[in-house]
Parts: sequence; C-alpha cells; structure tokens
Amino acid sequence: MQNFKVSFYPDKKSVEVPQDTTILSAAIQAGLQINSACGGDGVCGKCRVLLRKGKALVQPTGTLSEIEKQKGFILSCTSAVQGDLEVEVPVESRLDFTRSGPRYFSSPEESEPAEALVSDEFFEYSPLTEKIYLELPRPTIEDNASDLERLYRQVRLCKNTPILQTSLYNLKQLGEMLRDADWKITVTLARRNDSLEVLFIEPGDLSRKNHGLAFDIGTTTISGELVDLKTKKILATKTAYNRQATFGSDVIARIIHAQKESGLEELHEALTDTMNEIIAELASEHNISLNEVTCVLCAGNTTMIHLLLSIDPTHIRKVPYIPTANSVPTIRATEADIHIHPRGLLACAPGVASYVGGDITSGILSSGLYKEDSLSILIDIGTNGEIALGNRDFIVSCAASAGPAFEGSGLTCGMRASGGAIQKVRIDPAGDRVDYDVIAGTPPVGICGSGYIDILAQMLKAGLIDRAGKISAGERRRIRHSELGKEFVLAFKEESLTAADIVINESDIDNLKRAKAAIYSATSVLARHMRVDLADIRKFFIAGGFGNYLDIENALFIGLLPDLSRERFVFIGNSSLAGAREMLLSAAARKQAEEIAGKVTYFELSTDAAYMDEYMAALFFPHTDLSRFPGVKF
Amino acid sequence: MQNFKVSFYPDKKSVEVPQDTTILSAAIQAGLQINSACGGDGVCGKCRVLLRKGKALVQPTGTLSEIEKQKGFILSCTSAVQGDLEVEVPVESRLDFTRSGPRYFSSPEESEPAEALVSDEFFEYSPLTEKIYLELPRPTIEDNASDLERLYRQVRLCKNTPILQTSLYNLKQLGEMLRDADWKITVTLARRNDSLEVLFIEPGDLSRKNHGLAFDIGTTTISGELVDLKTKKILATKTAYNRQATFGSDVIARIIHAQKESGLEELHEALTDTMNEIIAELASEHNISLNEVTCVLCAGNTTMIHLLLSIDPTHIRKVPYIPTANSVPTIRATEADIHIHPRGLLACAPGVASYVGGDITSGILSSGLYKEDSLSILIDIGTNGEIALGNRDFIVSCAASAGPAFEGSGLTCGMRASGGAIQKVRIDPAGDRVDYDVIAGTPPVGICGSGYIDILAQMLKAGLIDRAGKISAGERRRIRHSELGKEFVLAFKEESLTAADIVINESDIDNLKRAKAAIYSATSVLARHMRVDLADIRKFFIAGGFGNYLDIENALFIGLLPDLSRERFVFIGNSSLAGAREMLLSAAARKQAEEIAGKVTYFELSTDAAYMDEYMAALFFPHTDLSRFPGVKF
Repeated sequence: MQNFKVSFYPDKKSVEVPQDTTILSAAIQAGLQINSACGGDGVCGKCRVLLRKGKALVQPTGTLSEIEKQKGFILSCTSAVQGDLEVEVPVESRLDFTRSGPRYFSSPEESEPAEALVSDEFFEYSPLTEKIYLELPRPTIEDNASDLERLYRQVRLCKNTPILQTSLYNLKQLGEMLRDADWKITVTLARRNDSLEVLFIEPGDLSRKNHGLAFDIGTTTISGELVDLKTKKILATKTAYNRQATFGSDVIARIIHAQKESGLEELHEALTDTMNEIIAELASEHNISLNEVTCVLCAGNTTMIHLLLSIDPTHIRKVPYIPTANSVPTIRATEADIHIHPRGLLACAPGVASYVGGDITSGILSSGLYKEDSLSILIDIGTNGEIALGNRDFIVSCAASAGPAFEGSGLTCGMRASGGAIQKVRIDPAGDRVDYDVIAGTPPVGICGSGYIDILAQMLKAGLIDRAGKISAGERRRIRHSELGKEFVLAFKEESLTAADIVINESDIDNLKRAKAAIYSATSVLARHMRVDLADIRKFFIAGGFGNYLDIENALFIGLLPDLSRERFVFIGNSSLAGAREMLLSAAARKQAEEIAGKVTYFELSTDAAYMDEYMAALFFPHTDLSRFPGVKF
Repeated sequence: MQNFKVSFYPDKKSVEVPQDTTILSAAIQAGLQINSACGGDGVCGKCRVLLRKGKALVQPTGTLSEIEKQKGFILSCTSAVQGDLEVEVPVESRLDFTRSGPRYFSSPEESEPAEALVSDEFFEYSPLTEKIYLELPRPTIEDNASDLERLYRQVRLCKNTPILQTSLYNLKQLGEMLRDADWKITVTLARRNDSLEVLFIEPGDLSRKNHGLAFDIGTTTISGELVDLKTKKILATKTAYNRQATFGSDVIARIIHAQKESGLEELHEALTDTMNEIIAELASEHNISLNEVTCVLCAGNTTMIHLLLSIDPTHIRKVPYIPTANSVPTIRATEADIHIHPRGLLACAPGVASYVGGDITSGILSSGLYKEDSLSILIDIGTNGEIALGNRDFIVSCAASAGPAFEGSGLTCGMRASGGAIQKVRIDPAGDRVDYDVIAGTPPVGICGSGYIDILAQMLKAGLIDRAGKISAGERRRIRHSELGKEFVLAFKEESLTAADIVINESDIDNLKRAKAAIYSATSVLARHMRVDLADIRKFFIAGGFGNYLDIENALFIGLLPDLSRERFVFIGNSSLAGAREMLLSAAARKQAEEIAGKVTYFELSTDAAYMDEYMAALFFPHTDLSRFPGVKF
C-alpha cells in the first residue's frame, strides 16, 4: 500500500501514513489532540479540519453547513487520505484550544498557594504514605539484631503497629544503605490493611520531602491536586482534558472503543498520559522531583478506574452491568504507568456500582452527607449525573445519563469550564444586550455549563424562548435562522477569540433540556422510590465541573434543581477531588469511604417504570407540572 | 588476546576461552561441575585434572604428590590456558561422581512413596497455599456485586477471614475468566499475616492439583521434598550437591566470593539452578506440571538464605556479624528465580542470627525441643555445627565452625552421604580385616561422615590409633607411610570404583578430631554457660546429613557426643527438612517457628574466653579428661 505525507498547520507537524488512513488517525500519530466527542463516528462534527491541499475521500455529513463545506471544511474522522495532504486544524477543533503551548491551565484561584487543610477537623492525619527520619543504634556483639529487625524496632518506636513488611527490593539494598548512610535514614511507610509497609529507604533526612496527588478522573476532565503530605498544604491544582475524548465523549463510547483491537491500551495510555503530564507540570512548577512524590489517590467513575488500571470494562455496559471491581487494590503507581517514585503507591476511592463510582463515594465523603441526621441529596452534574440521597443511617444512589451538555460538550459552541469559556451571562429583557464573564478574562471562545444555565434562564425570563425550548421571539439583531433551527448570538465574531459568532441554537437548547430533564427526573424518582418528599430534604449539595461558579437561582429556574428555598442549596464544586484529598491525607477518611461505599445502595433507574414518564414530563422549562415550581414566575 | 580451545574428557565438551583463563573457569563454562572446596585458592587439591595435551601455566602446589605430578595431574584452579588443551576430569574431582548422567540421586528409602504425614498431631492443616473450587452465583440486576466482590463473598463462605486481597494481574483477567469458565473456578489462596491473598484463579476444578516443596538448603547439600498439599503426602525427596561448592566449601568462602564482581549473581545462580533442577525432576517424575507447584518453603542457614534472595551477605562475616535479615518476607518464587507457578510463593524459615539460621529453627520445631518440660539439646552436625539447648521456657544456641569434615569434604577420600559412600565400617581387632556398607550397594568411591565416625572408633578400639589421633600401629598390609603421614587402607583399588585405594591418613584424622572437638566443646561450653550439667539433659537430638545411619555408640566413643546413657540420644536425620515440611503444611507451624526464632538467644562462642581452652582439651579421643567419659573403655 502506498504511503502519503500529511502535514498539519499551523503546527507544521507531518506524518507518513498509508492510503485510506483517516485524517483524525494521522493527526493523533502526529501528536495533535483533536476533539472527537463521538469517538470517530462522524456524528458530532467536532473534528472538522480545513483541507488546504491534496486529495481525500470525504463521506457525506450533515454536521457541516454548506458554507463550511464550500470553504473546504471536512470531518477528519471520516475523511481518508488519498494523497499528500496539507490540513489546517482550527483552534475550535482542538481538545484544548485556549493555548497553543501547554495543554493545561490553572485558573488563577486554583494556582495560588492555598491554606493548610483543616481536614483535622474531621479526620486524623495519617497520609497514604509517610516519611520518618530515623537514627538507628549501631549494632554490637550484644545488640546483634539483623539490619531489618533493627529498622523495624525503630519504626515501632514511632508507629504503633504489630505487623511490618517490606519487599525483597528493599532488603537487597538494606545492608549497604544503612552503613553508607551511617545508620541515619528516611523511611517511607505506607498503611496497608492492618499492617505497615516499608516502601523504600533513603539515606539522610528527607522526611520533609513527601508529596502526594489527589485526582478526580472524569470522563471529559481530569483534575490533579499536589499536596505536601508533611505540611498538609495544597500546593496547586491543575485541570486538563482527558485525552480519551479523542475516542468518544461518554463512558459508553469509551467502553465500545476498549473492545477494539488495542483499544484498551489506547484508552489507558491516553488517560495516563494526561495524568502524567499534570503530575510532571505540577512537580516541575514547585521544584519537586518526581521521586519526592510517593502516592496518588484517584477518585473516578467506575469505567475510568477500569481504564486507569487496564481492566477490561466490557461488562459495565452489558446487562446486568457488572464491573470487574468497585473497590480495587492499592498498587504501585508504576503498575498503572503513573510516573512518581518508582515504589510509590496508587489507591482509588471505592465505588458502588458500574454507574456510581468512587467519585460519588468521594463526594459523599467530602460533602459530609453520610453523617447528617437529616436527609440530604448530593447531585454531581457530569456526563454521567450521579445522585445520592440519604443521611447517617442510609444512602441510596442512582445514575442519570445526562450526556455531556453541562460540560459543554456536544453543543455548537460548548466548551469546558476553562480559559475562554463564557461562565456567567446576563441578557436584558429586550434580548438585545448581553453581558458575560469569561474565565481567565480573555475574549470568549465558547460557553461552559454554568454559562448555558444562565443563558437558558435569562432567555426564559426575557421571553426569548418558550417553555418547550423553542426560540419564540421574532428575528432581530441577535436572533436568526440556522441549519439547526433558530439561533441566538451571544457574542459576535468581532468580540470572539475564534473570529466566529458564539451562538446557542434550538438544537443546543434541546440537548440542554434533555440533560436537565435526566437529572431532575432522576432526583425526583429516587426521592419517590425512597418515599421521601423533596421538601423534607434539608441540604442539596450541588457538585460538578462548573469551575468556581454556578447560579443556583438560574439552575432552579430552568428546572435542573427542584424548587425549594435557596438556602438549602450548597454549591460544593469538585467534591470528588475534595474527597480524594481527604483520603490522601487520612487513613480514617479511607476507611470512612470504604464504609460509605459498603453502605450505599444502588438503584437502577433504567429498570424503573416511572422514570421514563417522569423524564418526559421534565422536558419543559421548568417542568410540565408548574405546581412543582411555585417559585418560578415568568 | 588469543583464544584457545579446551576440550574436556570423557565428556567430550569443549569451549573457546582467552589465554590465561584458568582450567577451572573453562570447565564451568563448559558446564562441568568440578569440586573446588577452597573456592579456587589452590589449597584443597580437590579440583585436580589430568592434562593430556597442550600447554598450561601451572603454579607450584603441595596438594599433589610427586607421583601425581609425574602422571600429569594439575590443579585446574591455578593452571592457566596457554594453548589448545585436552583435559581429563577424573571421577573423584567431580561434584557428583556417582553418575555420569543426572547430577542427582535419591536413596532408595527416600524415593519410595511415603505415608501420609501425621503432622495433624501437632499442627492444624493450613498449607502455605491452598486451592479451593468455587461455583459463583451468576450476577443479576438484583445481585449486582462486582466480579471481585462476588469472588470474595464466596471465598468468605469457605474461609473465615476478614481481609482479602489480590493483585492487579488477577483483576485484569477476572472478568473474562469468570465468564469463560461459566463462574466455576479454582482459586489459589495464600495466607499472609492476618489476610488472605488470592494468588491466582483458574477455570474449572483444579483443587486437587496443588503441590509444594520443602527445602533444606545446606552449604554443601540441598534436599527438596515434593508434597501433595491436598493429601498431605510426601511424594518424594531428592538431594543434590549445592553447585555453589565450586566457589568454596564453607559459608565464609562463599561470602568472600560474593564480594567479587558478579560473585553474588554466580552464587545465586548456582543455588537456584540446583533447586530448580530438583524441582523439575521431582515434578517430572510425578507427572506434575510446574504450574501445579504453588509454593516452596526453605530452611537454610542465614548465608544460604541471603544468597537465595540475592541479598549481599558481606556483614555476616564482619564483626559484629549482622545479617541483613533473619526473617525474610514471603515473596513470589519467581523473584528468587525459582521456577514454579509464576505467581507461586517462596517462604523461608526464620533464623536467629548470622550463624544460627532458619535450619536450626526448623530443627527445633521438628524435634519438639521447644515444648519439652525437661532440658534437651539439638546438635545439627554440618559444616557449621549448630547447637541448641533449652526447653519450653528458654532456648539458647551457638554455632561451632566444625568445618566440612563430617560432610566428607576436605578429607583425602571424603565424600557426601550419597551413592558409593562407605557409611558403616567394622575393623577387626588386628586391624587386618575391614567390613563396610556402601550407600546404594556399589563398590566404594569414598567415605562419608558416618563412615569416618565408625573408622575412628574402630581404629581406637583396635589400638591402631592413639588418643591423639596418631596411627600408632606399625606398618602392615593396611598401614603405610604417605605424604600426609601414615595412612590406613579401607579398600584397596581392586575393590573400589575409582581404581584407587580408599584410605584415611593422619591428616584426615586430625581434621576429624578438630571437627569433633569443635562440636563437643561448643556443646560443653554452652551447657556450662547456662549452668546446666550435661547429665541433666534428658534428650540429645542428633541431626545432620548422615544419610539414614549414624552409630551413636561410636560417635560417643570418639568424644563427639558426651558420655551419657545411650537411650537419651535420638538420631533425627534431616530435622531442618522435616521442620520445613511442617511449615509448608501449617500456618500454626509457621507461627510456632516465628515464636521459636524470637525466643532463641544467640550465644557468640568466639568471644567466650573458656571456649578455646575447652576446644584444646577436646583435641584427644575421646577427651584429655577421661573422667568425662567413664563409659569409654579401651
């Protein structure tokens, strides 16, 4: 078969590929991160590129407008290389298009040094790994304990533990290490069940150089937090796109990809590459050697944890939806290709079921829902919306397939809550003037979840859309027809960074409506299933990847949240990451998470007869049954 | 540098080596096992070979007689290749010269199927690894536990254990394995501290196919016993020379070799090669796949265990004699290059100190000394003689550098207790007629330890040697002069397999005298140190590599054992191997061994002022102080 050269611009990267290779595949080989939310099925239209020169076999598609097609735009996933090509990848088709250099960002709030954690208030300090400095007494004829027993003896003076263990690796080095270090050493310890493991030993006093990372591993977004395990300070947080997005936008698409040849390896590599770059950048920015990072604690949904550990996720999506494991063993990070100290550990928050993962356990932990006397609900708004209802006595949870709309994916101008995203919106009653806040203060690139919530609420209040989500207002400066129904222009191309109008159209609104209906109806059905009146819920914890902002009033106005007094709602941001950090720092938190995971009952919505009716009824703003939303006035 | 070809006969093996390579080194490269008790220092004279053709640079040596030199014998360790050579390796210079083919043998008693173990009498059955067959209930929407939790749940129905763990390796296979096997699987479990580990999982019912090996790893001899872990039957035992003998005959020589470049690797490889061949042959003879062998339990002296695990033993021989570890962690056998099931385990009996190893702990366990009300002594007669004195309340132990004489090493015609060894001897009062028994019934090749004990006692009784060990009788048919003092001919060359006279000379007798003096005086000093009268010792357990025979009366007559009533002595053979087997089969035995190791106090003889005096006084047969041996009449 003939090979052709594909050159990508403006990156000026090129690869040689065989005829019939897709341009998307060529781009991945060239090291480019192209958005491909549908996993290469030609459906989402996110991966469009501009064919500048050369011959490609292009499939018909409805996701590109006629104008775009005329300009030379094609979908990279369904277009096959037939000759040497020159391809331009526009900024909006890239997985992270806010920067041309590094793929990661930290919002200013996140990168500033944070306060010392006050997790002591809840959990005692006993991090996953701990370094202690020891000066061992030299051996004599009278005190002739072996090197290992001498070490254990001294550890026992600091740590109350009957069982100590270590690996052959350490034993092989021990004799020389102790003598070279003149019996002054730093021991890195890890708790495992009821025993303490000597992970590794270093000469001298390095006890102050111990760091760990808490991770929230989401389907679309991964956040990592660097923690000084000695001082309990959060040094910084970084968020990055999960590079798996190239293989599909939701867990189902990923599981399907995992069944392809090399699919599991590709997904594992994409995930661990993302994590490793977060780790490397955080460490480098704080002048920390990777050898000083000794553990990682990951909270993620069940599919992500399977993929992190290269465990086949096939049965997660097959009836009766059984994962290989909800609670996975703590392993050496290197076993999962995570690059920290070669003997460092990787632990995962325990999950509950295939669609209620360690991220929700972690969220329940950090929200404190599990220890309240009164009833609370935790709603984690992600691609897979997870809902937990309970108190100190019981917790029941369910998962709603909300889709990635609130994470800005699958929408015309959607993007994640990162630099360039419109996150707050105000629209004047006439629908003419629009004010917005953009993350990182740049000109806008797209709209993130919290921005969409505001837009919907504001458009409803201004009468620009009706309760079914149709744009009811007549044409005007900001309202016009498009291929995907009417659209409303948030920002004209003169204002935007992409030199294209930033819009919301009726198709987007429909997507958002279905997402909010899924979450509202799941909450509602779960409460009814437990014979709980939503009015009896004292606290609603709202979690999710909305950055640092979510307008509760607007979320309620569109019917995403039930209409209850506003003070019951608490926006807790990334509760999964917060829980992971608590587990990183405390064995008691890890134990509590195990108890929570053991206590949570999973309620399978898809087999509940009432769910579909409830969902259909929720496909209005705020709901077909306005009596449920007495506080919402038009 | 020029290369030369060295050909070895009668093996017809040849190698190309650079000029100046020693012939010993060339032989090792050619795969020959040459005896080199001194480790290549040109001192022991065991490695002599016949130079048939070619040029070698030969160093002067006193270990070869003039006649031998004239015949063309040279020492392979100190002779350097200077041209193409033809070298004949005589049978007596080989590490195992009873067979030309396989390097191992089993005495007839050992290879017969043995009775089921009655270790139940002492310890409950709970082998190091256990296989159980499980039929898991299929998952449903209602019973949607994860694969791992489903497995654990079923294991918990059989095994009362709170903590279960497994490795990532098993998790990665679990989903497919369970479904392919239609939920019918065999789980191999291992006890680790207070938790139970799922080692591996196999489809179908293989619960009856579980085997383990007990090993006694001696400095010169290694014995392995194949045990059916399900039926508790010993299937067979095999003994082989420790191939490390090429690098020196005692642990000190080995430790010195370990400090040379690649020395530790060479010693580790020699040891594990020996063990792997024992395992492979035992398994093959019983039609057992190596994958059905799931664990190995090793009892050995501290140096051997270090070398088995590739741990640097340097400090064992340096004041204050500190090993890296006495109690080493249980590891995967493959980590020590032992070839059984790739996830099988290797555990070692815990030791006490540098010169009181896991072999003596194991011997104390199997002898039952630790649970007696009255005082007992265990004497393990090996290259490093180990002595333990105690009862249920205390145990104290010491080590005496006896040298390898009682293992037949370092003596003119000495050999181990294997096929061809004279093991029992009767000499008529006139010293003319000699009757002997040879192991395996062949013509004699050499003399083993129990043979030497008989010879010394019989020669003393016949007045052929005096109490200082000098051959006092005048010349006669069997007594003549030699380069190493007078010698006594046990078997003339017409009777022997090697076509050479089998003799004992005054140098040999001196060696044996020093060995027996070391053991007797150590026993005596240890008792005095503990203010115990030897007459108050109720039981003397005599252990060691004497094959199946030791004449207690003769051992006592020469002053190796104290002169007490004969019924107090119990010859228990290889007590280290017996203890290893008990530990293989029972967690309680393993726990008991840990307790024993923790309880035993080590008494360092070399720093005791009385020891040298006592040793000097013991350099007579039976002793300078005849009042200690009232039962010995000449």
